[in-house]
Amino acid sequence: MNTQFLKKLMVPAQTKIVLLIMDGLGGLPLESGGKTELETACTPNLDALAIRSALGLTMPAGPGITVGSGPGHLAIFGYDPIEYEIGRGALEALGVDFELGSDDVAARGNFCSVDENGFITDRRAGRIPSDVSRELVSLLRTIKVAGVEFFVEIVKEHRFAFVMRAPGLRDALSGTDPLKVGVQTLPVRALNREAKKAAQYANQFIEQARCLLADKHPANMITLRGFAKLPCLPTYSELYGLHPAAIAINGMYRGVARLAGMAVLQVCGDTIADEFSTLEKHWNDFDFFYMHIKKTDTFGEAGNFAGKVGVIEEVDALIPRLLALDPDVVIVGGDHSSPAVLKSHSWHPVPVLLYGKYVREDRIPEFGERACLRGSLGVLPAKHVIPIALANAGRVIKYGA
Amino acid sequence: MNTQFLKKLMVPAQTKIVLLIMDGLGGLPLESGGKTELETACTPNLDALAIRSALGLTMPAGPGITVGSGPGHLAIFGYDPIEYEIGRGALEALGVDFELGSDDVAARGNFCSVDENGFITDRRAGRIPSDVSRELVSLLRTIKVAGVEFFVEIVKEHRFAFVMRAPGLRDALSGTDPLKVGVQTLPVRALNREAKKAAQYANQFIEQARCLLADKHPANMITLRGFAKLPCLPTYSELYGLHPAAIAINGMYRGVARLAGMAVLQVCGDTIADEFSTLEKHWNDFDFFYMHIKKTDTFGEAGNFAGKVGVIEEVDALIPRLLALDPDVVIVGGDHSSPAVLKSHSWHPVPVLLYGKYVREDRIPEFGERACLRGSLGVLPAKHVIPIALANAGRVIKYGA
Repeated sequence: MNTQFLKKLMVPAQTKIVLLIMDGLGGLPLESGGKTELETACTPNLDALAIRSALGLTMPAGPGITVGSGPGHLAIFGYDPIEYEIGRGALEALGVDFELGSDDVAARGNFCSVDENGFITDRRAGRIPSDVSRELVSLLRTIKVAGVEFFVEIVKEHRFAFVMRAPGLRDALSGTDPLKVGVQTLPVRALNREAKKAAQYANQFIEQARCLLADKHPANMITLRGFAKLPCLPTYSELYGLHPAAIAINGMYRGVARLAGMAVLQVCGDTIADEFSTLEKHWNDFDFFYMHIKKTDTFGEAGNFAGKVGVIEEVDALIPRLLALDPDVVIVGGDHSSPAVLKSHSWHPVPVLLYGKYVREDRIPEFGERACLRGSLGVLPAKHVIPIALANAGRVIKYGA
Repeated sequence: MNTQFLKKLMVPAQTKIVLLIMDGLGGLPLESGGKTELETACTPNLDALAIRSALGLTMPAGPGITVGSGPGHLAIFGYDPIEYEIGRGALEALGVDFELGSDDVAARGNFCSVDENGFITDRRAGRIPSDVSRELVSLLRTIKVAGVEFFVEIVKEHRFAFVMRAPGLRDALSGTDPLKVGVQTLPVRALNREAKKAAQYANQFIEQARCLLADKHPANMITLRGFAKLPCLPTYSELYGLHPAAIAINGMYRGVARLAGMAVLQVCGDTIADEFSTLEKHWNDFDFFYMHIKKTDTFGEAGNFAGKVGVIEEVDALIPRLLALDPDVVIVGGDHSSPAVLKSHSWHPVPVLLYGKYVREDRIPEFGERACLRGSLGVLPAKHVIPIALANAGRVIKYGA
């Protein structure tokens, strides 16, 4: 079943849906026979909600596939993450809240060190401090080439986002980072005829950058890779007639939400409670809210089991504020697993809870990986969650007579 | 998700995977309310392994589809068994350990009885003993036709495998067995223009066979059917960077493993314990081992419930030898079900167990059909098992950033 099929069945409704994503929610026990982060966390509010919900486990992109945040979010937003691919460069630009347009080609940039012959000696320019690279980024922003507009945004340390803007630009471009030292950076090559113009622009930028940075050792050269435009997604408005908003603190998630046509709300402050305050403030203005909690993943990737448990408990304590708004449908889930024992994203299915007045309750009194395994949603592709939520929100009519 | 998508995400690792297949493992109770063969068997070692594993049930080719050994194995090897079809003739040749080449066209051959007008009187020539057909096969081997090489291998009684070898041969050929008596055998017809040459060669072979066998009643004629070349599978090495080996006693399984690019190991002896000895002997030489246990299916097809239970218990007793090798990932499953009560292959999903250090343990203390139903793998297409095993073996990198 694809989104275009579903689109034809959509009807308007006055209902409100909340999609609460704890990034990297799924986990693993510290040792055989133990409990996962979510199972360990004391979550009385989520457990009470679970009793009245349908539970399951989501697979973001397929069996055994570990996803990055981009495809993980596309999937839980209801899109096929293999059909719609978000390239590295586009994600990097979204991550610094850059408003990428449909003609923009973005790349991940690195400052690097080269010797007098142009041979790379350090692919990361000694991880120069952000203060230093901020100045160098200002230099790069002076580069002009006729017919194209360039944007350079610092990410952190040696990393920056690079964007080219011109009508009809294509992104079939090879990267310049040879991924090893002792060799020169590569020229950007067009991977098809249509991308030739974009390759020229990128190479002209790189040549000017080389001159501008010549005496800035260790950051005396740049590499660009992961050239990508945004995938062109049908929006929530087009597909479902929804008026959606996103509540997220980190740029990448705000960017991916924008791809789906969500209004990105300003969060005053940077705590999870601040995100819930934003939800309350805008409750009457939208009918779909995506809320993103970053720190579950941050602690998971850092290998901090207890830290991840703590964030889950912090979210749990805020659940009553969400329920007090009387949402029609609530989804609590994740974009992928990030078990602390692996210190990375993983392929393990992600717990999901679907609450609503017309949900057939599983009556399972716990929200956790193994509890969800007994749930009626089963182990399902993540992209199937939104259609079920829409049905529960009274927004999908009967197919056929 | 297809194998080409997965291929792009593969990374090398030092891990080892064992795929232990009990042929026709899935079963049914002898009577309503009873236990299946696997549930009846006393399997303390598999049960202990199940606690630390993810469980599920595999569907080889789709809901309600009963598969033969060829497609059943392709599926559990990770290939789509409908995309890659192994024809009857090719399987017959693989079954006698014939090393089919990519240009070879194989067929299933039968000796049959015809009257003075060439009308079939017995499609199986009275099921002549193998000793008799061995002599007749020697006669057929004397047949020569310019431009093509023929191979004839006895299978059993009236059955033989027939292979034609010549550059560019095609297998779009009709069979000669009319599937009834009282009519003549049919000529081989080319089903498309490219197969004309192959049809000529086959008909020339049949004409010479008719002359050679004229006075050999009851086996005075042959039929050929199921003409087929091997499907061209991408190998485990190409797809996954694995260096795989197969441990199987029966020819067909050795042949199918060879299709996937597995090295087929010599088993000294013909017991299940001998197969485990082979695993131990070659443990350091490969990173993927497929082990095939035939007798579960043999007893299932014979309707021998207790016999099948006994084989499962025999395998269970050998599991400690497998675990002593400290494999990173172990899959225990089957290629299809063969319930003793049906005396045949069946469509029922097949129990599967996936063990590994980073498996999210289901903590289910039993390996059996209904225990597996509660497992986190769910009821899944058999071809999805290998991707999950590869992920658990640390051989799949993240998709997207």
